Order: sequence, then C-alpha cells, then structure tokens
Amino acid sequence: MDPTPNPIMEQALAEAEAAGKRGEVPVGAVLVAAQTNEVLAAAGNRVEELGDPTAHAEILVIREAAARLGAPRLADCDLIVTLEPCPMCAAAISLARIRRLTFGAYDPKGGGVDHGPRIFDQSTCHHRPEVVGGVGETACREVLQAFFRDLR
Amino acid sequence: MDPTPNPIMEQALAEAEAAGKRGEVPVGAVLVAAQTNEVLAAAGNRVEELGDPTAHAEILVIREAAARLGAPRLADCDLIVTLEPCPMCAAAISLARIRRLTFGAYDPKGGGVDHGPRIFDQSTCHHRPEVVGGVGETACREVLQAFFRDLR
Repeated sequence: MDPTPNPIMEQALAEAEAAGKRGEVPVGAVLVAAQTNEVLAAAGNRVEELGDPTAHAEILVIREAAARLGAPRLADCDLIVTLEPCPMCAAAISLARIRRLTFGAYDPKGGGVDHGPRIFDQSTCHHRPEVVGGVGETACREVLQAFFRDLR
Repeated sequence: MDPTPNPIMEQALAEAEAAGKRGEVPVGAVLVAAQTNEVLAAAGNRVEELGDPTAHAEILVIREAAARLGAPRLADCDLIVTLEPCPMCAAAISLARIRRLTFGAYDPKGGGVDHGPRIFDQSTCHHRPEVVGGVGETACREVLQAFFRDLR
C-alpha cells in the first residue's frame, strides 16, 4: 500500500514520533468521523507516562472520542494507526464498532489483526471493521526501528 | 470449582450486582496484591455510564491499581472477576503482567480465555497468567442471567 501515506496517517505518524521523544514505543493513532474525516481524537502511546498498561494510542483515541461523542459506540468513525493493533486494541476497536481500521506497519510479534489471535477472524467476534493494512508502511516501520535502534 | 466463592470473589460479585443496578451488564472485578490479598482496586462495568467501550470492570481495576502503584506492570497482583474476560481484557491482563487470573462464569459467546481467540494460548502472547476458572461460577452466572431475563 506504499509509498504515499495519507494526511491522516501523516498526523498519526507525527503522534508516533512525539511519543518516541517522550520515551514511549512510538505508535500514534487518529480517530476521525467517517463521513467528514474530521479529527475527533489524536494520541500517541502513553503507557510509561501514565503508568497505565492500557494506554496504547488506539485506546486513548477511542476513549477520547467516545467521551466527546458521549457514547460507547463509534459506528461512524474510522481509526488510523501507525502499527497493526495488538489484541487488546483490536478487540477494543471491535467493541467500539469502529467502521474502518487503517494501519501502517505490520507487527508479526505483537499484532492481533493479521497475526496472533487474529481477533476479527474469530467466529465470536461480534463486529469486524473494514481493515486496510500497510498504508505508509515504510515510514511507520522506520519510526519504530529507529526507536529500538537508539535504545541499544 | 463451586460451590463456595472466596471472599474476594464475593466482593467482585457485589460489584457486579451494583453494576447491574446502574443498568450495566453485571460484571465485577477486584485486583489484589498477590502476597497480602490487600484490595488495590474494585470496580463494576461502567461502559454505559462513562460512555467508554473500554470501561469493562477488568480494565478499570487495572488502570486504578496501576495509577496507585505508579507502574504499568502489576506482576505481583492477582485479578478476580465474575465472568471470563473478553479478548480485550484478557490481552490487557497479559500486558499488565498480572500473576493470576481467577474468574467465575465461563463465557462461550464473548470470552477470550477459554473461548474465542484464547489469548493466553497464542504463541505471540508474551505473558500468560496462572488461570483459575469457575470459582463461584453458579452465583456469578445467576447475576448475569437475572439481568438479561429482566431486560426482556
């Protein structure tokens, strides 16, 4: 799906980069209204800062957008994230009834969409969003690779 | 594992019942320090009240205990919940490095531990807690059944 990230993915990437500068694993997410592409929430990973193991970028934007819309279901919303969501986030995306998930880099070790438990492929998964993977993949992967290279 | 729920499960059950009275699916959870059994957090489901699709009882106690301990990992903690965790909560329990998960009723339709994606059985699952299912199963199931019977 490379080479051109879309503008929303560029924003997610900026959130990822900002997260990396805070010492977090650099993953960023944006949640938009599906019809208008209006940005309802944008966040980077804040697990270490908040001391909250659930504070992945996807969970933060889902919580923020749901609070903003005053409803626990976000059926008319799309989520854009730089990395394939982990099983927790994939399941949260399903619970939130998000319309479409777009992600950048694939995550064979920790992903829960195309890898591991493949949350949306389970017969007990009550809502499967449309899924588009690999958008801006190279740029999204490079932010992660640079972060882990600098850690060594 | 019936018939006698342990005292912590009784507290989780009380949280479930309180959640049901608020119009929430009646699930309750308690997070304790593994060594002392000190209660660090207790909560019922608050999805509708908070308008937050991630506000399952398990997520709420993990977030509260992590905030209290100031750390995103809860390696010396045990989580007790009235219902088999869904895939989101099971994955969060793994991310939080919780030592032992004890749950009451099994959930063939929505569970993610012994059903569906079986989160902890995945080769990409980085931490598998000790799991004890069926503790106080009858009482935990009856709270749920009564709630859904009253809805009809």
